[in-house]
Amino acid sequence: MKIAVLGTGEVGRRLATKLVSLGHEVAIGSRTADNADAAKWAGEHGGTHGTFADAAGSAELVVNATGGLVSLAALQAAGAENLNGKVLVDVSNALDFSEGFPPKVGLPDGRSVAEHLQSAFPEARVVKTLNTMTNTVMVEPGRVPGQHNVFLSGDDADAKAVVAELLASFGWAADRIIDLGELSSARATEQLMPIWLRLYGVLGTGDFNFGIAGA
Amino acid sequence: MKIAVLGTGEVGRRLATKLVSLGHEVAIGSRTADNADAAKWAGEHGGTHGTFADAAGSAELVVNATGGLVSLAALQAAGAENLNGKVLVDVSNALDFSEGFPPKVGLPDGRSVAEHLQSAFPEARVVKTLNTMTNTVMVEPGRVPGQHNVFLSGDDADAKAVVAELLASFGWAADRIIDLGELSSARATEQLMPIWLRLYGVLGTGDFNFGIAGA
Repeated sequence: MKIAVLGTGEVGRRLATKLVSLGHEVAIGSRTADNADAAKWAGEHGGTHGTFADAAGSAELVVNATGGLVSLAALQAAGAENLNGKVLVDVSNALDFSEGFPPKVGLPDGRSVAEHLQSAFPEARVVKTLNTMTNTVMVEPGRVPGQHNVFLSGDDADAKAVVAELLASFGWAADRIIDLGELSSARATEQLMPIWLRLYGVLGTGDFNFGIAGA
Repeated sequence: MKIAVLGTGEVGRRLATKLVSLGHEVAIGSRTADNADAAKWAGEHGGTHGTFADAAGSAELVVNATGGLVSLAALQAAGAENLNGKVLVDVSNALDFSEGFPPKVGLPDGRSVAEHLQSAFPEARVVKTLNTMTNTVMVEPGRVPGQHNVFLSGDDADAKAVVAELLASFGWAADRIIDLGELSSARATEQLMPIWLRLYGVLGTGDFNFGIAGA
């Protein structure tokens, strides 16, 4: 599949690399066409790079791996015409590090990043997932022992099915994927960040994940 | 131990009953001395009942099992003189059902109920715990299969040790108790309510719990 990964940070590069290794044609997108991280990634991994609009324009499926506080701006730069009708996988969290660590979590109005994106691009098929764990675990769930889960939120059942298949290709067993229902449930998963950050501090590693015992 | 359980709802009665069964002298407290639920509970289970102040006054340890939106008022009715120096176990969540289900979660200023109580009663030794699961699981963790956890938050290490012992007596193995650190981490556990409510809707039962794989 032709996939755009928007965002050249650690999360974006990790997802893009995994997607290339699975045989997808991956374009990584950034604010500017000459982003050094994106060029380096493309050179090393065999994908392409370009602006948000370049990447999204040629893709069948778009992954938002930009920071949640700037996601709306990034997607606006990508352009509605490059998103309409496409599955938009949102893995972001709104983390404000302007006052240091731990960051403030969430958007001022209490809605999720995913809902903001869906409102701004009503023709995109937004699915929230993978935002409740560190990027290494996203693409290699087996590195965390025991039973743990990944969540799905979205208003479009077919889009969720496409994303569930993608998760399966990452190594997520079907019974570890919990569909929380409509996209507004992304609010609940984005609110896991505060306890994720506390656990990261206590455990001293990001190699952990939430499991729902009894599910 | 002499224990006061403040709040005569399902959570309070469940905890009070468990504590009686473990041999504690339990007083259940409510707003008024003649609360019918409290009298019925005391008659059936062999504890005593009275006002918040009656119950807290005679106790060595106090459990706040009132609704998080009214906890501050309940504890003010109990009186600082009946709380000072005591371990105050806060199991509450701030859930506003005034606009139906699902409830709005949290207090307007974004701080946790636990922090509000600690600010109002600086001499009480507040420990937040058990607020991330349904009341049946609190006192019988074995009813949920698999690995799952209970969290502790508090500024007083000795108070947390007392509460950890109480949790052990409920059936929580030591390695299932995760100390998240200072009391402000209660903000993170109180923010688990939105996903708890979604999971309750998806799973159709409260018999589940959060586990931290890799912890």
